Amino acid sequence: LSTLTPDIIEKLKTAVGDGGWIEDAEGKAPYLTDERDLFHGQTALVLRPGTAQAVADIIAICAAANIGIVPQGGNTGYCGGSIPNADGSEIVVSLARLNRIRDIDPLNNTMTVEAGCVLADIQTAAEDADRLFPLSLGAQGSCQIGGNLATNAGGVQVLRYGNARDMVLGLEVVLPDGRMLDGLRALRKDNTGYDLKQLFLGAEGTLGIITAAVLKLYPRPREVVTIFAALPGAKAAVSLLARLRDGTAGSVTAFEILNRACLELVQDHIDGARDPFTEAYDTYALIEISATRSDGGTREAAETVLAEALDAGEALDAVIAASGQQSNDLWRLRETIPEAQKRAGGCIKHDISVPVSKVAEFIDQATKRAEHDIKDVRIIAFGHIGDGNIHFNLTQPSTDDAERFLAHAERLSSAIHDIAVGLGGSFSAEHGIGVLKKPELERYKSAVEQDLMALVKGAIDPKNIMNPGKIVSPKT
Amino acid sequence: LSTLTPDIIEKLKTAVGDGGWIEDAEGKAPYLTDERDLFHGQTALVLRPGTAQAVADIIAICAAANIGIVPQGGNTGYCGGSIPNADGSEIVVSLARLNRIRDIDPLNNTMTVEAGCVLADIQTAAEDADRLFPLSLGAQGSCQIGGNLATNAGGVQVLRYGNARDMVLGLEVVLPDGRMLDGLRALRKDNTGYDLKQLFLGAEGTLGIITAAVLKLYPRPREVVTIFAALPGAKAAVSLLARLRDGTAGSVTAFEILNRACLELVQDHIDGARDPFTEAYDTYALIEISATRSDGGTREAAETVLAEALDAGEALDAVIAASGQQSNDLWRLRETIPEAQKRAGGCIKHDISVPVSKVAEFIDQATKRAEHDIKDVRIIAFGHIGDGNIHFNLTQPSTDDAERFLAHAERLSSAIHDIAVGLGGSFSAEHGIGVLKKPELERYKSAVEQDLMALVKGAIDPKNIMNPGKIVSPKT
Repeated sequence: LSTLTPDIIEKLKTAVGDGGWIEDAEGKAPYLTDERDLFHGQTALVLRPGTAQAVADIIAICAAANIGIVPQGGNTGYCGGSIPNADGSEIVVSLARLNRIRDIDPLNNTMTVEAGCVLADIQTAAEDADRLFPLSLGAQGSCQIGGNLATNAGGVQVLRYGNARDMVLGLEVVLPDGRMLDGLRALRKDNTGYDLKQLFLGAEGTLGIITAAVLKLYPRPREVVTIFAALPGAKAAVSLLARLRDGTAGSVTAFEILNRACLELVQDHIDGARDPFTEAYDTYALIEISATRSDGGTREAAETVLAEALDAGEALDAVIAASGQQSNDLWRLRETIPEAQKRAGGCIKHDISVPVSKVAEFIDQATKRAEHDIKDVRIIAFGHIGDGNIHFNLTQPSTDDAERFLAHAERLSSAIHDIAVGLGGSFSAEHGIGVLKKPELERYKSAVEQDLMALVKGAIDPKNIMNPGKIVSPKT
Repeated sequence: LSTLTPDIIEKLKTAVGDGGWIEDAEGKAPYLTDERDLFHGQTALVLRPGTAQAVADIIAICAAANIGIVPQGGNTGYCGGSIPNADGSEIVVSLARLNRIRDIDPLNNTMTVEAGCVLADIQTAAEDADRLFPLSLGAQGSCQIGGNLATNAGGVQVLRYGNARDMVLGLEVVLPDGRMLDGLRALRKDNTGYDLKQLFLGAEGTLGIITAAVLKLYPRPREVVTIFAALPGAKAAVSLLARLRDGTAGSVTAFEILNRACLELVQDHIDGARDPFTEAYDTYALIEISATRSDGGTREAAETVLAEALDAGEALDAVIAASGQQSNDLWRLRETIPEAQKRAGGCIKHDISVPVSKVAEFIDQATKRAEHDIKDVRIIAFGHIGDGNIHFNLTQPSTDDAERFLAHAERLSSAIHDIAVGLGGSFSAEHGIGVLKKPELERYKSAVEQDLMALVKGAIDPKNIMNPGKIVSPKT
């Protein structure tokens, strides 16, 4: 790869036009570090193209000059995938100005959006058309759909609606040579050769830049029942989930678990957070059941199943939200865990998945290992049990020093990932690879898988200009 | 590519062992032509490996010797994708003996199966575990899951459960160089680099041979309501579908339409088929609503919505099956259309899709065009309206000669495909490309899309030994 010359910088500025670029240090700063402040990069130029054509022009210039390109959406990722390298040789391309909703077709249940649309705005636009766009995650107020698709975002409704990948019918992508791939078809069936869009979903910008997408919409829930249940443990959570799915016509749309330590941490650090129960329990489930009819039938069915679960000892207590406010309060207990963690000091995070049938075993093994290694470690285990996806995080003992605690990170994370992979699981369920988890990818993926990834990268981006250094290097 | 020598044939026989190969003409015959008798190939050798390792051994031998390989499942495809070429230089690899169900995990809602499992056997095994495997199509008694995945099969429940691609969590694949890609992970979230399985799903065996898969299972319906409704036209069908999805908590699992000519054709040619109504109507919908509770609530909800639809004029009459036998009889009206067509003489078939909001417009335009070109042509339009997928078939006038009628095929199919593509649609919704639709692929896919497919093929199968001549040629 080459470095940026004044001549190329001039060409790039011309391609995006006035107001489409940032050169001053203060303006560039937010693009050069991540939310968790783990990654820090440099760049001579941040580009903010306003059209897909401008994106294509930028890439064509960079391809001709061998300049590395780092695409960036809302910059809310956890793995450093949208941060440029430290030597300043790469340009950053922010998609933020590409934020038009191009079309909504309620009869076809589709919506065509540009990459820079903020996820929450897409949810709102769907609602305005009496439809649901179900991708839902903590960062939805600032993350952009292009980033969601490039990282195959997960979130809290995967159980019912799948990952971001599953919500896409078509993509418009600028390839690493500047050509435009126009695949904005709004079709539910289209078996005409390789499904090219799949290449770019989850590729973290290493094979091209997604500029627009056709998304699937769904019937909007008319009634949402929110339940907070106290459980004897993770194993009971898996049984309760199966019982509820069965008993409510498959309309469970979220099933989050959190352990006691999560609830205590939130109560300690978040204003107004309070335990819905008077007694303490081992594990809690936050459950959302959605129906498209508002006749009360879903709530009734949920109550029946909950009563059965209490009888069976799968649940020990439960509250059902009586209002939107109560529902928000319950969700807040789950959603503020990351913030509470931040305030509680050093934290070693994991985003593992295992088969749902192995979740309890994973939590058990990983807890034993962490407690064996670090006295008084606080195990903050929460996540999406219906997907087998647990954020198994370790917060420093309140008596310890953050730096000394974090020195355990590499060894302990390897051990936790070994446990997950040993149970047929993954070391990165929804957060992706970026640069943070590249060593883990090299460690856990088979030689054949790594080779195949390198071959795909080599075929599509042989010059390695698209988000170089992330995920994989090309093999040609 | 090279031709088979006695030496290579000997090696291949050794790789599969006794009973794993067929050389005699009679034994080979069923592997050399398709169900519709449109394609005819030759081969010196049909191999029937009994293990994934034997598949790998076969491919390694062929890779070293540059021999073309044609993978074959149940051989029920419509586009010639599983038939070898006419010069006999390619070998056929049947996956039929790879038919073990390796594992069922009801708590994880997954099932691990080998490629040669017959779809109906997988459905039954899921049922025995009190789960549903929802892929459902006419050929399910003989098609094999490996072929379903390699062609991304669709069928009648796509509306609710997606295409075959959407039902897969992991794949085991033998690559064109004989290496084994072990991706049999049973995870709902696994963002660890490129999603390699997507490459092989829908690639029709041109990038490798799928030997096993982890499939998703779903809650089994406890109550299925089958409705046959008379409608004023296709536009009303789209409205009725939206109303029903909304009114039954999204539990509509099938919504098939057929026009009057379909019903007449079936009554003329299929024993015992009878019109459920006394009057004739323009269009009919066969609807299936599934629920996981058997409390009658779903039937009640369906009845309420149907009454609203009758009031609104979207439906003109409707019957709800009162028994499993009645339900089977109604489904028979839909499922025997292909057989009735065969008996009615020459038929020009199309498998198009358009956005659901454009279905009525497509049918209207395509009907006008066909009737303009051929006097008294019988328009047999049926299909999966929830996916925008219409089998828009043309049956010869009863007074015409099949050969003379079929002479219109090329011109008329081009016109029909032009109409679909002009409405943002596809010329092959669920049947794939094979060799039949390669000219259409070259005609309708953009240069960029074709180039990208060729690059992917070139990266993974640079020698072009995997199902050569199907879909695309490699670019290296």
